[in-house]
Amino acid sequence: MVGVRAELKALFGPRALLSPAEKGVYRYDAILVGPEPLAVVLPETREEVQALVRLARKHGLSLVARGAGSGLSGGAVPEEGAIVVAFTRMARLELDPVGRTAWAEPGVTTARISEEARPYGLFYPPDPASWRTSSLGGNLGENAGGPLCFKYGVTGDYVLELEFVDSWGEVHRLGRQAYDLPGLLIGSEGTLGLITGARVRLLPLPRYRATLMAAFPEVGALAEAVSRAIALGAVPARLEFLDPVSVNAVEDYLGMGLPRGHALLLVETDGDDLEVVEEELSLVEETAKELGARVQRAKDEREAEALWRARRSVSPALGRIRPKRVNEDIAVPRSELPKVVREIAALGEAYGLVVAQFGHIGDGNLHPNILFDPRREREERVWELAHEIARVALRHGGVLSGEHGIGLMKRAFMEEAVDEGTLEAFRTVKATLDPHGLLNPGKVLP
Amino acid sequence: MVGVRAELKALFGPRALLSPAEKGVYRYDAILVGPEPLAVVLPETREEVQALVRLARKHGLSLVARGAGSGLSGGAVPEEGAIVVAFTRMARLELDPVGRTAWAEPGVTTARISEEARPYGLFYPPDPASWRTSSLGGNLGENAGGPLCFKYGVTGDYVLELEFVDSWGEVHRLGRQAYDLPGLLIGSEGTLGLITGARVRLLPLPRYRATLMAAFPEVGALAEAVSRAIALGAVPARLEFLDPVSVNAVEDYLGMGLPRGHALLLVETDGDDLEVVEEELSLVEETAKELGARVQRAKDEREAEALWRARRSVSPALGRIRPKRVNEDIAVPRSELPKVVREIAALGEAYGLVVAQFGHIGDGNLHPNILFDPRREREERVWELAHEIARVALRHGGVLSGEHGIGLMKRAFMEEAVDEGTLEAFRTVKATLDPHGLLNPGKVLP
Repeated sequence: MVGVRAELKALFGPRALLSPAEKGVYRYDAILVGPEPLAVVLPETREEVQALVRLARKHGLSLVARGAGSGLSGGAVPEEGAIVVAFTRMARLELDPVGRTAWAEPGVTTARISEEARPYGLFYPPDPASWRTSSLGGNLGENAGGPLCFKYGVTGDYVLELEFVDSWGEVHRLGRQAYDLPGLLIGSEGTLGLITGARVRLLPLPRYRATLMAAFPEVGALAEAVSRAIALGAVPARLEFLDPVSVNAVEDYLGMGLPRGHALLLVETDGDDLEVVEEELSLVEETAKELGARVQRAKDEREAEALWRARRSVSPALGRIRPKRVNEDIAVPRSELPKVVREIAALGEAYGLVVAQFGHIGDGNLHPNILFDPRREREERVWELAHEIARVALRHGGVLSGEHGIGLMKRAFMEEAVDEGTLEAFRTVKATLDPHGLLNPGKVLP
Repeated sequence: MVGVRAELKALFGPRALLSPAEKGVYRYDAILVGPEPLAVVLPETREEVQALVRLARKHGLSLVARGAGSGLSGGAVPEEGAIVVAFTRMARLELDPVGRTAWAEPGVTTARISEEARPYGLFYPPDPASWRTSSLGGNLGENAGGPLCFKYGVTGDYVLELEFVDSWGEVHRLGRQAYDLPGLLIGSEGTLGLITGARVRLLPLPRYRATLMAAFPEVGALAEAVSRAIALGAVPARLEFLDPVSVNAVEDYLGMGLPRGHALLLVETDGDDLEVVEEELSLVEETAKELGARVQRAKDEREAEALWRARRSVSPALGRIRPKRVNEDIAVPRSELPKVVREIAALGEAYGLVVAQFGHIGDGNLHPNILFDPRREREERVWELAHEIARVALRHGGVLSGEHGIGLMKRAFMEEAVDEGTLEAFRTVKATLDPHGLLNPGKVLP
């Protein structure tokens, strides 16, 4: 491996991290820890990515693409002896306000696209909760959603062109015409190619927004209210929920006067006409009241911000209950939500573990979090429960991953989720585009 | 082949068409004619599609999927000895108004989805001009757009799940999670699998619509107006244009008082608030006037219908000028539109052939039509000109197919449009999913 280290030094200089101290932080994503990688490389151009792929091929090494490391399925966690390709420094962003598009390199943070588009009255809708830190490359790798995706769709829906380096080191820049290889790369978690840029669509900013918070005595009634309001024609931009465990945790943390023991629904409507925006919110308000909720409407942007702060604080708040957690990421049909939420709560009790549930309820995308302290609770039990939760989703016609991918964590489940013939087709696709198993091996496929 | 005919008869009875008279009509799409197929089969269930694939494999025959045959690139045109699979009879449609989705089989006509969704206040946005006849299966095969696609996106953006039979005869039903095989199948023109159903998203119907027609003395000014209005923030639902040749043809045909010798822009805005809808239309109106257009605003739905009738009548109107035509389908960046439209008009004159241009100008998707009479004009010249037009698109950063696919007609161009490495990747994808070359051979790839 001395040869590899020397070659990396020659090609990338100080951007090839080789000491254990430098490499340590790249062993993690937001949920799992892997072994120390052989090296971490921070390329600055597509040509450097090509050179890296050729070097890896020559030496039979594997490459693990990494964005901001905020994923929750271990997709960016290296295996033994891998080279981590951290795209942090490939962060050029070019706006075309007339064409309403942006060309972005993978290291551009998601929020930055919307921030730079704002002076032109434009924004980039797919907005993972972590959008200040998460990067476009990671969003593309996982086909990320976010609170706005109920109304606006996910990352892949905004990609007009994709540039990637294949496992032979060749660059391709393709639109979405037949065959849609970009579509195949999006959501493939770095296992089929290394994305080096994308042209994404921007939308005009809506002129008005309105927000409310509804407190329900029980999660089932909340889920029912969401189903009914959507059936009546409401198309909120955001529909987020927190179960009583999450509400209590946030209240302990911030003391902002949230109703303890209740399930909270946060709703934002948006559009170009204030009356319609308010009307749509009223539809949700009435439905929520019919189902026993107390409703608080934000009077202005500042009050709205305060309400959304509750949702954004769930993760740090939960961290105060137990030092560690496993964040599940399932999606189920909306009609199944009341049953699914109740079954997961019951499972948590049966296992004697703290489970908090919250997420993008408009899409049926839930994040059941199992909180634990490795000094008090056995980690195997935690994973057993996580797998039971995944099975609840599958039983109710749901899927294993709402937005964080399969990665390392849910690989074993693919056999339960997808039929053998389809898995075989997946394996063939992988073998075709990456015959040497260079790209993020051991991820996605069981 | 006697064995094949007997087996087809046994499996499909009168739905296996074997006489030359019955098969004749399945030699065509809307632009090309192929040889007589060995047989035409009209399956009614996915199990019948599976049986057909197994039969074809056993006998080494190829299968050509066919929707309504309204395509413009020869994608559904059979080769010698192929079996045409016409999906006309697989036309079940199930609506889920609460979940805002529809499950549709490939034979369902595009317009029917919106018609059945209307009582629930919903619609299905991708709307090819031929939507009364074209079918979902064909729309999926070509990833079809339509007038509404500037605002609402194309067919693939609405697919939540896809069911298909692979080249081994296995059925798969998949969501859009990693790996997104549905995304790969969409737009693959029947070369990677046979689509037997899809779950598509429906949207709430906008409450209001407004329409205008702007007559420009010259096409370049029209293209400029479109670019400027969009840059100013207009998001019309439809943006269609007709060049002077098309306008004169429609006027000769319908005598509706269109301004001869002018280029026409038709614009529709939609939304839930009448004021905003009118405001957005006014933005386009002012921009058009600044660039020298005369603007006529529809006073009501009936007047709007009359204006849209002009656009829908272009195809039959052109048929009165010459008996045959080649309908190109290119897409270029909006900023290049004025140059592209002028270059194509000049090419038509240089070749001494009648060229009419119209299309979805909001997306830069143009349909230059070369009109000809085989008794008067040499067909090779027509194809030469068609190829020159495709080259104009590529030269200006455009693509070969806006919405009708590559098919048979544009295959030869793929080598100019896509680099060799990418073509190689395409070939590998094809060889992987259809190693026996069973599915629509001779299409898409050069």
